[in-house]
Amino acid sequence: MPAENPVANVTLAVSTVIFALRPTPTSGRPTVWLPLVRRIREPHHGLWALPGGPLGSDEDLQTAAANTLDETTGLTPRYLEQLYAFGDVDRSPGARVVSIVYWALVGAEEAADAVVTENVRWFEADDLPKLAFDHNRIVEYALWRLRNKLEYSHIAHAFLGDTFTLADLRGVHEAVLGKQLDPANFRRQVEASGQVVPTQQLQTGGRHRPARLYRYNCQLDPVDNGPLFAR
Amino acid sequence: MPAENPVANVTLAVSTVIFALRPTPTSGRPTVWLPLVRRIREPHHGLWALPGGPLGSDEDLQTAAANTLDETTGLTPRYLEQLYAFGDVDRSPGARVVSIVYWALVGAEEAADAVVTENVRWFEADDLPKLAFDHNRIVEYALWRLRNKLEYSHIAHAFLGDTFTLADLRGVHEAVLGKQLDPANFRRQVEASGQVVPTQQLQTGGRHRPARLYRYNCQLDPVDNGPLFAR
Repeated sequence: MPAENPVANVTLAVSTVIFALRPTPTSGRPTVWLPLVRRIREPHHGLWALPGGPLGSDEDLQTAAANTLDETTGLTPRYLEQLYAFGDVDRSPGARVVSIVYWALVGAEEAADAVVTENVRWFEADDLPKLAFDHNRIVEYALWRLRNKLEYSHIAHAFLGDTFTLADLRGVHEAVLGKQLDPANFRRQVEASGQVVPTQQLQTGGRHRPARLYRYNCQLDPVDNGPLFAR
Repeated sequence: MPAENPVANVTLAVSTVIFALRPTPTSGRPTVWLPLVRRIREPHHGLWALPGGPLGSDEDLQTAAANTLDETTGLTPRYLEQLYAFGDVDRSPGARVVSIVYWALVGAEEAADAVVTENVRWFEADDLPKLAFDHNRIVEYALWRLRNKLEYSHIAHAFLGDTFTLADLRGVHEAVLGKQLDPANFRRQVEASGQVVPTQQLQTGGRHRPARLYRYNCQLDPVDNGPLFAR
């Protein structure tokens, strides 16, 4: 049996789920948002879809994903990782398309500066319309991966500046998990994990008393993705 | 920017890393092995490669991986999961090939019954020759995933029968991790994890005194892969 045989009738796309935290218009509370692109051709003309496109013959997969992100939003991701390859036989009407999907995180300030065009709009990840192809399922899986990874990695860092208060960090966890967390419990868990270390600086100028600024513990890798990504 | 545009000049393959525990000839101690296929054409004619092949137009990705496994070894996997999509521009001489790679676990008894043909041979995963394409790197990553997943999932189950002694389970961990573990510490950790539960049966007939048989705790999912794989 030959290995690595090419096949002509299966085509390959790269798409990217781009997450940022943005305030919900009604409550002002931050939640997870992502930009989608309106389809301007069949199939699924008029529906919203994940940004993506053809894999250029001189682009590796991650470069293609980063280029998609740049073209859609003008943004450079703080975090970019391969999510999964989706290849169900019937996922694209009239063609056999396999999509290799990446997911990206961008910071809140960058997201606020994102380019917005007529056919690009940001949506709340937990409140999407019916999307093109199997893209609702893909976003659902990407959200699961984000929430799961929040628990055991430094991924919240991508949503924060270099220093932050524990209230800022808790705000990211609350926004991603979609629920409020007890401040005292959260502080205990974070301090016990050793993932963040206090700096000598205080955050001042707010309505509250000055709060200690923290930074991530640089001696821990943000995410352990194994030998493929060793620095 | 169009989403999901097909591209003609990138071709797609599905390959599978198939792990089983087999005794090392020298010591008799079990280690991790995998079957490889000798390439019978260019590029890399004569080198060993992961079993794989073209994605049939009516196969989804996982079916293609399972078919590869069946064709190469005659085996049905106890566990099969998507590992990663490899798409570096220069990974296949003279062509642009993206490989979506799965990894599979098969039980020791099944592995002993595997079909062996002239161009299929089992190799020790930690002692491979130079393989075709980037397949050494792929195996290294799959081994990392296996070892990582052993720590936080039920994955050892795929190497065991329905019931097993704690010594059997420790043997799997030792084989996968490539090091000996302290029996008393191992027992404490496994019992504290709640992953296995004792049965009323004892294993008899060996040289040692009868040992308690255990089974996995069916109330825990073997691996939490999220909403894509919910039962």
